[in-house]
Amino acid sequence: MRVDILTVGDELLIGQVVNTNATWLGEQLTTAGARIGRVVTMADDADAIQAELSRSLSVADAVIVSGGIGPTHDDVTRQALADYFTSELCFDASVFQRIEERYAARGQTPPESNRRLAQVPEGFEVLPNPIGTAPGLLHMAPVADRSVLVVALPGVPNELKAIVQDHVIPRLKDEVTVAPSAQRTLLTAGIRESALQDAIEASSFLAQDHFSLAYLPSSKGVRLRITAQGATRQEARTRLAQFEDHIRARAGVHIYGTGAESLEAIVGDLLRANSLTLGVAESCTGGLLADRLTNVVGASDYLRGGIVAYSNAVKQALLDVPATMLEEYGAVSGPVARQMAVGVREQLDTDIGISTTGIAGPKGGTPEKPVGTVWIGVATPEATAAHHFVFTSDRLFNKDRTCTEALNILRLAHTSAVDAIEGPPLAVQTDAPE
Amino acid sequence: MRVDILTVGDELLIGQVVNTNATWLGEQLTTAGARIGRVVTMADDADAIQAELSRSLSVADAVIVSGGIGPTHDDVTRQALADYFTSELCFDASVFQRIEERYAARGQTPPESNRRLAQVPEGFEVLPNPIGTAPGLLHMAPVADRSVLVVALPGVPNELKAIVQDHVIPRLKDEVTVAPSAQRTLLTAGIRESALQDAIEASSFLAQDHFSLAYLPSSKGVRLRITAQGATRQEARTRLAQFEDHIRARAGVHIYGTGAESLEAIVGDLLRANSLTLGVAESCTGGLLADRLTNVVGASDYLRGGIVAYSNAVKQALLDVPATMLEEYGAVSGPVARQMAVGVREQLDTDIGISTTGIAGPKGGTPEKPVGTVWIGVATPEATAAHHFVFTSDRLFNKDRTCTEALNILRLAHTSAVDAIEGPPLAVQTDAPE
Repeated sequence: MRVDILTVGDELLIGQVVNTNATWLGEQLTTAGARIGRVVTMADDADAIQAELSRSLSVADAVIVSGGIGPTHDDVTRQALADYFTSELCFDASVFQRIEERYAARGQTPPESNRRLAQVPEGFEVLPNPIGTAPGLLHMAPVADRSVLVVALPGVPNELKAIVQDHVIPRLKDEVTVAPSAQRTLLTAGIRESALQDAIEASSFLAQDHFSLAYLPSSKGVRLRITAQGATRQEARTRLAQFEDHIRARAGVHIYGTGAESLEAIVGDLLRANSLTLGVAESCTGGLLADRLTNVVGASDYLRGGIVAYSNAVKQALLDVPATMLEEYGAVSGPVARQMAVGVREQLDTDIGISTTGIAGPKGGTPEKPVGTVWIGVATPEATAAHHFVFTSDRLFNKDRTCTEALNILRLAHTSAVDAIEGPPLAVQTDAPE
Repeated sequence: MRVDILTVGDELLIGQVVNTNATWLGEQLTTAGARIGRVVTMADDADAIQAELSRSLSVADAVIVSGGIGPTHDDVTRQALADYFTSELCFDASVFQRIEERYAARGQTPPESNRRLAQVPEGFEVLPNPIGTAPGLLHMAPVADRSVLVVALPGVPNELKAIVQDHVIPRLKDEVTVAPSAQRTLLTAGIRESALQDAIEASSFLAQDHFSLAYLPSSKGVRLRITAQGATRQEARTRLAQFEDHIRARAGVHIYGTGAESLEAIVGDLLRANSLTLGVAESCTGGLLADRLTNVVGASDYLRGGIVAYSNAVKQALLDVPATMLEEYGAVSGPVARQMAVGVREQLDTDIGISTTGIAGPKGGTPEKPVGTVWIGVATPEATAAHHFVFTSDRLFNKDRTCTEALNILRLAHTSAVDAIEGPPLAVQTDAPE
């Protein structure tokens, strides 16, 4: 199945906004078994939209158009589609009713311009938008002796994602024959790409054409995308399961999840399942660790809160780090990381305390403690520990990567089935527990 | 001048790599005065490359092709271009010599596959690559009675950028008449898109063809992209300055910056300039406000730290919020927001305290306090205040939007030249200062 993606918007062309919708759609649709034919970005201009739509209709099985279906004068996609398929725009009262309900929940009425959002081209089906006002639109367009699935979506990323997951992918799977391949993404943390490669690459699986593996490193860890092909979907799925078992036997405990799972949600589930509470003490991550934890719905079940101890005065006053310790070892050190974890555990009265202290950069490095030096401390009722890392010179990467490793330390502490760990551990040095 | 961008690579189509080259090219070429016609991403496939090239040649003044000119078997762009223009690939000894010199500098010799990089289609000029081995290629292609500039570039971002800056942009300016236009982005916070529109749309400027304005809303506020055209570059710049003055007179104090500036950096500069220290107390934003503040290099000059008071117990223990206040008003209320700000100011011994408390969603709403309800508190030596907002049902949007408004409240408190504020304020209700 070939799917073409048309993204509409001047802001994309002039480089004001990165086209992450195209990336996300490419990944999701590929995972669902589609082949992406091309991605085209064009201006908010009806002629340009119709010209690219026409080209894609002649070669693709499905065309996804995103952007330009909002309420303002520069949202021209809806009208361009209606004109292309010579259908009339009709006011759909049930769509407008949902918009009114959304506004009513906030004690407001929708502005008049929102009536445009309820204009649906004849022959198009409405795809409800669970988190915004502009619904998606779907049409089976006759092209010669075929039918091509045409979908129009709002350009707001969260709304686009919700409609694709709820409606578009299920529909694609219904309407078109999917190539017999199966794909999965395994998520790892706590191990470098090169160590993963050493553990996996010798695998006899990879010598076979119908298996493939891609390494996707980021500040959230290294993702492994594994693909298997087969003569039938069932064979592809069976092979994928064998391949996954094989990779899991080699990457072991470093694999924390699959697909779109997040490490913060997995850690949250572990804490909830073990009835444990958590407090975080952050210096170099500056609040990002608490932020990632609170991105998870229901985090209040286990997260009491955190202390962002950006200055040494706050480390002393709220986390009981002794001035002498700061002087002797420096704020970026194992003893201080450990005391920060102990301090936040006591201050917030939690089962576990975790801390970060480091040199995020780009300034502040020394020969002994270069930019990217990080210590992560953990305190539990039983023990305390501190883990040492050296990351990069990039401030934002270092903040996020530190949070990933801190979350992974929490995960490993509560993962009962510890598989064999292949490859050297990521932490370059770990203080012996007290 | 219309420039089309063709980006080649399977990794872009399947969403493995975000197409940041297209974003960067769009921004650079727009700044240089070009208009981007379309951006097309296609597979490493000669037929696909030639089909899109043919379409772009017929309408564009220049076509930039990136990716697929490396040394491996899936790099097909070089051969596809040679075939399209029916030119032979010729070995260019001087190109290979530069490659040998790069390797020699590391005491190595280039692998045999690198000889492919010295294959140049007849009629193409070589654009030296200052940081990698694959050079760019440039050709003035005759199309009917015109000449179209065709450039092929390596897909490695740093190499692409270097060749564009050194060679492509200067050449574009030489070869083609640059459309005399000027553009700027004004950044606003604290005002809704609709209120901005009401304030600006009546403007007589917008009735004139040579001015245009786009509204780009996000959780960071609404960006206004203004464009002016003129018979000369100087006229375009003069008109842009007039247009900007006009918008500033109407959007007034809501404009906090331009271009790629960030609100957190602007607030940081204001705090530093006024020698003020800040502490943050976060409930619904869960650490994100401190995170955004600490993304700015040098934030330790003014940010002492923060308290993430996710549970009521932490609000009581660390921020001195009385249990009776939590019972009477609820955690999401003006009095609690105000006390959190007072509490963090005292606890961290800072000049200013700022706080957030709200229902980020998607759960937890009530008819009186729907999801999206947020209170932001501020405490200074002189006064305290609390501001009330109702945002959306999207958790991550609400967290980020709350931080934007909190930062904007800090900015407004230290902006001496307060212009006339057009349109209703974003806060739907504000507690009178004590």
